[in-house]
Amino acid sequence: MPVKRRILLKVAYDGSAYSGFAYLENANTIEGTINTAIEKLTGEKTEVIGASRTDAGVHAYGNVVVFDTASTVPAESFYMALNSKLPNDIRIMESFEVPGDFHPRKCRSEKTYEYRILNTKLPIPTKRQYYWHCSYDLDEKLMNDAGKYMEGEHDFSSFCASGSQALTHVRTIKSVDVARDGDVITIRVVGNGFLYNMVRIIAGTLMEVGRGKIAPEAVKDIIEACDRTKAGPTAPPQGLFLVKYEFPDGFILTNSTK
Amino acid sequence: MPVKRRILLKVAYDGSAYSGFAYLENANTIEGTINTAIEKLTGEKTEVIGASRTDAGVHAYGNVVVFDTASTVPAESFYMALNSKLPNDIRIMESFEVPGDFHPRKCRSEKTYEYRILNTKLPIPTKRQYYWHCSYDLDEKLMNDAGKYMEGEHDFSSFCASGSQALTHVRTIKSVDVARDGDVITIRVVGNGFLYNMVRIIAGTLMEVGRGKIAPEAVKDIIEACDRTKAGPTAPPQGLFLVKYEFPDGFILTNSTK
Repeated sequence: MPVKRRILLKVAYDGSAYSGFAYLENANTIEGTINTAIEKLTGEKTEVIGASRTDAGVHAYGNVVVFDTASTVPAESFYMALNSKLPNDIRIMESFEVPGDFHPRKCRSEKTYEYRILNTKLPIPTKRQYYWHCSYDLDEKLMNDAGKYMEGEHDFSSFCASGSQALTHVRTIKSVDVARDGDVITIRVVGNGFLYNMVRIIAGTLMEVGRGKIAPEAVKDIIEACDRTKAGPTAPPQGLFLVKYEFPDGFILTNSTK
Repeated sequence: MPVKRRILLKVAYDGSAYSGFAYLENANTIEGTINTAIEKLTGEKTEVIGASRTDAGVHAYGNVVVFDTASTVPAESFYMALNSKLPNDIRIMESFEVPGDFHPRKCRSEKTYEYRILNTKLPIPTKRQYYWHCSYDLDEKLMNDAGKYMEGEHDFSSFCASGSQALTHVRTIKSVDVARDGDVITIRVVGNGFLYNMVRIIAGTLMEVGRGKIAPEAVKDIIEACDRTKAGPTAPPQGLFLVKYEFPDGFILTNSTK
């Protein structure tokens, strides 16, 4: 049997046309589309292992998948070769070999998400697929203050959609920062693990803070309640971007940040 | 017969899904879609008069159309009422009444276009429909210098696609400014009239300047040659935005810039 190598791909995509990241039979998914491209290139039937299973409509600059191959394509050439087989709403940004036992969901990692709000009177057509439009005046300073109460280790049950299969709802958020640039408010959240819809519920809650319906300090009570009904609405998917995925332990950080 | 009023609409759109602005039978056009929305709202069969007939794939923040109606909908309410009848890649940003003889292509006007280049090693999927991706290192200062030779009154035959039916190729460009913000280079062109594909040929020529294939001062010779083959390529449509349309003579400026 030929020796197999495990290849890591850094993946950027526009999620607008997809039923989400995770493979589903009979649906248009990011994983399914990458599997097909690898099969076209190498002739090998492949099921990639994805790092973050983003929802339908969510975008990414730096999601990660790995797969095993016996092909002779150099690891660093996969990204260009696969791009020629992929639709242009998915691009492989980088490719390199990793140890055969590396699994992107079973190791320490740090994820950076950005949630973007377009704060204008009327929506702008060319931005509709990449922002949540909000016509209320939003105070980004209040939103930033509120985000600080989310930082650290907490039980985030109030920020978890029903249907979660997580064994514990305790997660650690490293930082929540909210900043305005003209009409755009960006919520940047960094952490090592997130519950189902967690970043979108954080964004929906911070929007309520920004328009004055929730006081920043009330976020402390919302967290302590461990009750989804106390937090704000789930923000729509199109404002969410998985910006960066880092593996701080060892070899991959060096490669993936080059 | 009921008294008709002429209504002006300021229109923003994502041109990605359209065969262009101007009405064509059996094609998906911006004008055709607005005609249908007006008919749904008022019951009147309508053919709007458009200001700028942008090409397939070109976007706008502020194109202009006018139409006549006998309906009793208040002029300032048309924008909200029509938005409820339009797909979300077209939005009416503003509406008001204008004199019955106002024709947006038969009066003095000033148009502002922006052409956007994404200058990164690899394309970014979420930006593919709104930027021209260019992987060469571009020098925006050289591009800005070159643009200065285009300002003023010139015969722009070198910057006009074949098939133009214009009686003269003399046009006056008020300003060409090129600036970089991170990975994005924006070419901003202001003038009172443009030839077929003129802004896209300007962008294609400035790109050649930015990568060092044309010297800035050579633009003077390119203009004087009055020969389309001397200028650069026609840049693709998706980087082009009609940003602003102004009618400096009198009443409309006041309204349309509020």
